[in-house]
Amino acid sequence: MATYLAEHQTRFLEELMDWLRIPSVSADPKFHTDVLRAAEYLKTRLEEAGVQNVELCETAGNPIVYGDYIIDASKPTVLVYGHYDVQPADPYELWTSPPFDPVIKDGNIYARGACDDKGQVYMHVKAFEMMMRDGQGGVPCNIKFMFEGEEEIGSNNLGIFVRGNKEKLKADVILISDTGIIANDVPSIEVGLRGLSYHEVEVTGPNRDLHSGLYGGAVQNPINALCAMIASLHDENGHITIPGFYDNVDELSAEERAEMAKAPFDEEEFKQSIGLPASAGEKGYSSMERVSIRPTLDVNGIWGGYTGEGAKTVIASKAFAKISMRLVPHQTSEEISELFQQHFMSIAPAGVTVKVMPHHGGEPVVTPTDSVAYKAAADAMETTFGKRPVPTRGGGSIPIVAMFKSELGLDSVLLGFGLDSDAIHSPNEHYGVFNFLKGIETIPHFYRNYAAAQ
Amino acid sequence: MATYLAEHQTRFLEELMDWLRIPSVSADPKFHTDVLRAAEYLKTRLEEAGVQNVELCETAGNPIVYGDYIIDASKPTVLVYGHYDVQPADPYELWTSPPFDPVIKDGNIYARGACDDKGQVYMHVKAFEMMMRDGQGGVPCNIKFMFEGEEEIGSNNLGIFVRGNKEKLKADVILISDTGIIANDVPSIEVGLRGLSYHEVEVTGPNRDLHSGLYGGAVQNPINALCAMIASLHDENGHITIPGFYDNVDELSAEERAEMAKAPFDEEEFKQSIGLPASAGEKGYSSMERVSIRPTLDVNGIWGGYTGEGAKTVIASKAFAKISMRLVPHQTSEEISELFQQHFMSIAPAGVTVKVMPHHGGEPVVTPTDSVAYKAAADAMETTFGKRPVPTRGGGSIPIVAMFKSELGLDSVLLGFGLDSDAIHSPNEHYGVFNFLKGIETIPHFYRNYAAAQ
Repeated sequence: MATYLAEHQTRFLEELMDWLRIPSVSADPKFHTDVLRAAEYLKTRLEEAGVQNVELCETAGNPIVYGDYIIDASKPTVLVYGHYDVQPADPYELWTSPPFDPVIKDGNIYARGACDDKGQVYMHVKAFEMMMRDGQGGVPCNIKFMFEGEEEIGSNNLGIFVRGNKEKLKADVILISDTGIIANDVPSIEVGLRGLSYHEVEVTGPNRDLHSGLYGGAVQNPINALCAMIASLHDENGHITIPGFYDNVDELSAEERAEMAKAPFDEEEFKQSIGLPASAGEKGYSSMERVSIRPTLDVNGIWGGYTGEGAKTVIASKAFAKISMRLVPHQTSEEISELFQQHFMSIAPAGVTVKVMPHHGGEPVVTPTDSVAYKAAADAMETTFGKRPVPTRGGGSIPIVAMFKSELGLDSVLLGFGLDSDAIHSPNEHYGVFNFLKGIETIPHFYRNYAAAQ
Repeated sequence: MATYLAEHQTRFLEELMDWLRIPSVSADPKFHTDVLRAAEYLKTRLEEAGVQNVELCETAGNPIVYGDYIIDASKPTVLVYGHYDVQPADPYELWTSPPFDPVIKDGNIYARGACDDKGQVYMHVKAFEMMMRDGQGGVPCNIKFMFEGEEEIGSNNLGIFVRGNKEKLKADVILISDTGIIANDVPSIEVGLRGLSYHEVEVTGPNRDLHSGLYGGAVQNPINALCAMIASLHDENGHITIPGFYDNVDELSAEERAEMAKAPFDEEEFKQSIGLPASAGEKGYSSMERVSIRPTLDVNGIWGGYTGEGAKTVIASKAFAKISMRLVPHQTSEEISELFQQHFMSIAPAGVTVKVMPHHGGEPVVTPTDSVAYKAAADAMETTFGKRPVPTRGGGSIPIVAMFKSELGLDSVLLGFGLDSDAIHSPNEHYGVFNFLKGIETIPHFYRNYAAAQ
């Protein structure tokens, strides 16, 4: 296997880079044809690798790329999930190389989607090709592939597809590479993920932009009002003030927190890696806990008034913000979205009106560490990294993990190879060549371990 | 005179509209050549009207258009000031007709600069032409014209020009049309103007945009931090919390406030005109007082993070805002700018760094109502409107009024003809044809009254 990978790795990287050149940004309609091109590209590469029944399944939105390889109905079946859409790349000016013109620099592939999730999806395509061709025993179990194009915008059509194709998607476990490891010498597997409740808010004051000299002082400035509303969402201890917000939060026991604290985490290194003079957050919790077992509220974007060069003395008619909350078990996206909307409307000061428009949400999940599939993944990583992986609770959200559980009754294994420093969702996203190749090397071990354990 | 105006008003309007087609936006370098074209256009029209010694005076920035007409050194001299630059026109999408393609609709000229200040400047050019040609006695006093191209960006080079040309600019009074009247049937003259202190602030958190799932909860989000800082600048009564901010505010006596309250002001109409359900502002003051005798703090623009379509789960590295304060006598722009900077830096929470970059400022002024020039203006308005004008204290800032006083020792008369509803600094700025023509009709009366009274 090592030989095949060594012989073909240059081509693997080139193919990935070709795919990364297609700007499959799902959030922005102007990239729609690129999203379709990215799906077509993936379909072709799956077919070339030897996957059967490859098709683009139509949805109300972007197509789902499906394919399978069934060796024996009595063998276990793994359903591989990933996504071929990517986050918007702006602000473009902060990229040191263009986001859709991938380059390899210092051992990393730089491009939007390099890690999240095209690079990780492509590991699965090439791991499959390798199993088919490297003479190491072939494909040891049934494999189904399902790659969607709307993960970054909420996976709404995936849910409909899954509900409508339960027979086709029948499997024993779901395998996903869309998460990370602690470090290249500290392998880990995420076993918990936070949920998401995401909203856009609009605060309207006067019916048109006003001259701040003529009107300033006598009208509620919607930007000032929005700032005050946002500021009031946290108290002085970093707690979120939305009534009922913490009601269903799964509070960990002292023992569980002590267990968590054993995972390697260097607070100084954490601060340094993002250039922060001080960490911040909810009082009474460590940084590691704040990003995993605690819910949060962050403004992801804000805009209003004059934002051009120079000075304009205007009172804007409207101000906007995108506000999202990360959820933990057993909060639900629906419950929190309702609480947020009610509360945010209720704190509008006199003189403004407020609209709250929900974007997509997702449910928090904890996956089991005592399952056959988790052990197969941990053993595979131990083989290729030479170290037993640490189970971790991640801060991000993969809303579809909860959906797979509720709709298909299947647990997921989060066999991801990214690093926190990969700058996913940021300018200069990158993915280590080491990580890409290590993933391709590890995935076949997972299949073999999993098939052998049944 | 009425005959000349009636015969030529169509041409006057057409000439103004030609001038309005030149987008002389001083705040944005991409309009630089247009600013120069607008100055040339004005120079040519002044020459055609009969003004002498017309020249473009170079400055480190945009040229000052100067011209004069000296009939007799023993007669009084009026120095007319105005500006040919305009505010940026964005957001363009909110204009019902393009900002630099003027149209006359419902008795108004719609264009950026229609009122502020090209329309009002052009009244002076045409009033001069009329005095030269209508056979009503000619020009009764010495007149000097000085029109700058940087009023909307702080008039920095005007100050240098004035200091360097005191002999050339020697005059007895300054006449400015860059303000408004209460209504077309309620003439008024502004006798007080608020000053300005304008800043851009930058709040930096992490050294790059972060994924809100991986980092959310453990880092200070610069947008949330900026919102909290802005929110804290007002207390629950609408008072500004910057220490020392009110120390030098000229508090009006009960008698002065009672006098002010006699000016016609309809609170309901005020709210309705801007579509507001409720007025807002500092406790203990009326809306009219809030926009005139009280200082304010408003956010004029805010931006940070993802502001595109859809959802992006990012924690931005930086957040920005433009924040300005309107000042009243005897606050000074320098004093308040220092207090703001000190205070704003001091309230930065742990985990962010803050920069405060001052833009232009301007000093508040009160002009006398017992001067010969004020009476000449009030009498002129009484003649053309048929009603004695009300003295008012306006909320806007014309920083150069204070500068003229300190550098040239001259008071200004603010003979403006705009309306609060003209939407200056907003989309769909307009200027009434009535107001434009009424200005041309009134200005010669001012000169005659002023010359006769000496």
